[in-house]
Amino acid sequence: MTERATLEELVRLQGERVRGLKQQKASAEQIEEEVSKLLKLKAQLGPDESKQKFVLKTPKGTRDYSPRQMAVREKVFDVIIRCFKRHGAEVIDTPVFELKETLTGKYGEDSKLIYDLKDQGGELLSLRYDLTVPFARYLAMNKLTNIKRYHIAKDFDIAGQFDPMIPDAECLKIMCEILSSLQIGDFLVKVNDRRILDGMFAICGVPDSKFRTICSSVDKLDKVSWDEVKNEMVGEKGLAPKVADRIGDYIQQHGGVSLVEQLLQDPKLSQNKQALEGLRDLKLLFEYLTLFGIDDKISFDLSLARGLDYYTGVIYEAVLLQTPAQAGEEPLGVGSVAAGGRYDGLVGMFDPKGRKVPCVGLSIGVERIFSIVEQRLEALEEKVRTTETQVLVASAQKKLLEERLKLVSELWDAGIKAELIYKKNPKLLNQLQYCEEAGIPLVAIIGEQELKDGVIKLRSVASREEVDVRREDLVEEIKRRTSQSLCIC
Amino acid sequence: MTERATLEELVRLQGERVRGLKQQKASAEQIEEEVSKLLKLKAQLGPDESKQKFVLKTPKGTRDYSPRQMAVREKVFDVIIRCFKRHGAEVIDTPVFELKETLTGKYGEDSKLIYDLKDQGGELLSLRYDLTVPFARYLAMNKLTNIKRYHIAKDFDIAGQFDPMIPDAECLKIMCEILSSLQIGDFLVKVNDRRILDGMFAICGVPDSKFRTICSSVDKLDKVSWDEVKNEMVGEKGLAPKVADRIGDYIQQHGGVSLVEQLLQDPKLSQNKQALEGLRDLKLLFEYLTLFGIDDKISFDLSLARGLDYYTGVIYEAVLLQTPAQAGEEPLGVGSVAAGGRYDGLVGMFDPKGRKVPCVGLSIGVERIFSIVEQRLEALEEKVRTTETQVLVASAQKKLLEERLKLVSELWDAGIKAELIYKKNPKLLNQLQYCEEAGIPLVAIIGEQELKDGVIKLRSVASREEVDVRREDLVEEIKRRTSQSLCIC
Repeated sequence: MTERATLEELVRLQGERVRGLKQQKASAEQIEEEVSKLLKLKAQLGPDESKQKFVLKTPKGTRDYSPRQMAVREKVFDVIIRCFKRHGAEVIDTPVFELKETLTGKYGEDSKLIYDLKDQGGELLSLRYDLTVPFARYLAMNKLTNIKRYHIAKDFDIAGQFDPMIPDAECLKIMCEILSSLQIGDFLVKVNDRRILDGMFAICGVPDSKFRTICSSVDKLDKVSWDEVKNEMVGEKGLAPKVADRIGDYIQQHGGVSLVEQLLQDPKLSQNKQALEGLRDLKLLFEYLTLFGIDDKISFDLSLARGLDYYTGVIYEAVLLQTPAQAGEEPLGVGSVAAGGRYDGLVGMFDPKGRKVPCVGLSIGVERIFSIVEQRLEALEEKVRTTETQVLVASAQKKLLEERLKLVSELWDAGIKAELIYKKNPKLLNQLQYCEEAGIPLVAIIGEQELKDGVIKLRSVASREEVDVRREDLVEEIKRRTSQSLCIC
Repeated sequence: MTERATLEELVRLQGERVRGLKQQKASAEQIEEEVSKLLKLKAQLGPDESKQKFVLKTPKGTRDYSPRQMAVREKVFDVIIRCFKRHGAEVIDTPVFELKETLTGKYGEDSKLIYDLKDQGGELLSLRYDLTVPFARYLAMNKLTNIKRYHIAKDFDIAGQFDPMIPDAECLKIMCEILSSLQIGDFLVKVNDRRILDGMFAICGVPDSKFRTICSSVDKLDKVSWDEVKNEMVGEKGLAPKVADRIGDYIQQHGGVSLVEQLLQDPKLSQNKQALEGLRDLKLLFEYLTLFGIDDKISFDLSLARGLDYYTGVIYEAVLLQTPAQAGEEPLGVGSVAAGGRYDGLVGMFDPKGRKVPCVGLSIGVERIFSIVEQRLEALEEKVRTTETQVLVASAQKKLLEERLKLVSELWDAGIKAELIYKKNPKLLNQLQYCEEAGIPLVAIIGEQELKDGVIKLRSVASREEVDVRREDLVEEIKRRTSQSLCIC
């Protein structure tokens, strides 16, 4: 045994000793002592360069998706895409990276989160940070002034000069349709307008230069208390306490269209041109939302600010509400699951002549929604099928591989989702077990006798019932039996 | 006029002059002279920093996809995914970037094509180059020894220890099914085996250290002549001419299973253990391919080498064949549209203990296929619908926006794909025109009289026929009329 091998053996034995103590529920001190011995031995051993060649991980901030997670994703994406198509959207795609300068100056304080690539022969590139800026770049580059599109199944936007608030109302309708279809619990869509925020800042006495930074303080009110937000405004950002208090009086208000009407009567706010425009548009928006039957889902919330620099008008954000029924479940981390707004200036930033294309859109927080759906399925201990296989082609005796290959090929060619075990002579029991595990509903069993009779034994995995089906009828019989289970929901 | 404006005007006039000359088909010299004047004027003008703030482009090697291109992509992806699901595949996803060291040493000469990211706080990252290496990393990281999966709708792999050639045959079956379903013309799948190549190099007298570099020379034989390949082997790579000639005798052969049998009798090749294993496996493979009914699509081709380092067994590559029927069309750039092979060593490179997981897979050349399908549709001047909208909600008179919003909302809630024009008072003619352009088959027209009568006028865009439908029957009538047009093919 080499010295290294001896050390490895010692580490292994000491590891077993620690595990043994844990199983015996030994005292914490005893275990700690043995663990420390183990760590010393491991340190002596050092890293084994010859074996551990790689750190096996994904980059920080990224993750893999397992088949189970992808099955959940597929269902979520299916709901979203069906909704986008229902609203007549086309689809576009743009590269995962952009010229660095395309992304520069669009995200405010979020800019520091952008990944830059190494210089590629003179091109400075960054990974896209959202889909809105690449979309605006696409519009300017192709001189498009009019499009309704979605983008990798989560962003939907309407670009074009239209009558006020009609596309904005449709975006909110889409958000509500998607969140209702996903059945992830009750939700509320907070709505505000950048022009109302800016008008409010102006009449409260915030200097113009501080609008954006005060905006980002306001945005925190859904996570921390007003006192903390006020401290940040006064202490960090140098606002006079009186000014902060005036803001506080406004932003702690929320309600329906009646709050819009009340603020339209507000002697100061209604004197500010920007705020007045914003309030009038919100009033119109609420009319349309009532026609769409979703006004009860919408809350005008003066504390909603949204971080990104590019918004110019209506902004909105959907949050899940914890319902009493879920009290017994794990806390789901209530928070934003969809958001968006109007950004009328962004395309003009890319156009050589500064031509503006008004845009309004929304983005679905798919990652957050995946986690919520996953967690819920786990809580319900629900089995998630990760394949759609309808039938396993199996054999009852040995030496039937060729017959299995012929039959499975026939089924594939007829459009049936079919599998076989990649073994020459698998046991029937193992084949049936595979169906149980993978949730395959049917087994087509080939046997010597069946071959002679020109039939296939079709077995239902759930009921264990078996019937002989004439080979020429097999495809139709499988289609008939699985037609109900084709529903994806 | 400022000096800049004057210069701009001059450039404009000179540009018009050049265009005019071109229209008149003036002599090349004349045009060239005027173009050179134009260029001089433009140089004087210089870049206009105030307007042209950005270079409007996507990074080198990337492109956007327009709605039309995406519609083609969707159809192609639909064919591919349906096939993968028919074969019982699960789906996984991995991040777009990986730790740099994950990709290092897997691609041979292709490594220089990898995009590196800037250091992200100590993590050296690269964009993924294919999906095979991330898949192998995923298997090792999750200690999986058994999975059949696809990855973003183009890569399919079977991992696991199975009886020989069964999964390999299924991969070839999948390739043939997809290429047939896509209807992009006749194709051929070239098959070879790394072990046969290596055995052949050995018996021809290639030194071990030159196997990989000679492999990459062989791989060029589908693009350049044998003489050029030989020149590279002898001139650049220092092979003895006699050795190169021996290789040449082998790699210019291709055929079916009879060539496999012939080479099994080859006195030298059959003495090489590796080559013998490869040939025996190919013989078995051809048996399975015959059972799958695709042996006529397969050609054993000794010149097929495949560039990537990680292949260890069977390799394959599908090429399109120019059929006589296409003679009139634009040349399609015949070439590889799908490829793959067996890589039994790759997962072990990631596993700390070097545990091997045998894998075989394929990748569909989706970008190439998109171009081919696009080009074909253009040649046929076929209209591609980019939305699936079934009905436009329109109005015959003014002041019916609210009624339109109510009706379209009813339709959305009933699952109908519906749109409306985002104007308060659009003209009926404009609304009908929009349907023609967008290929929307039906128009639901609201009018004062219809509202009183409780009906909606349903118009077929193609036939211009109109019928009054009771409002409560509208959803069913739209579903009935559009059920045939739901087919995606």
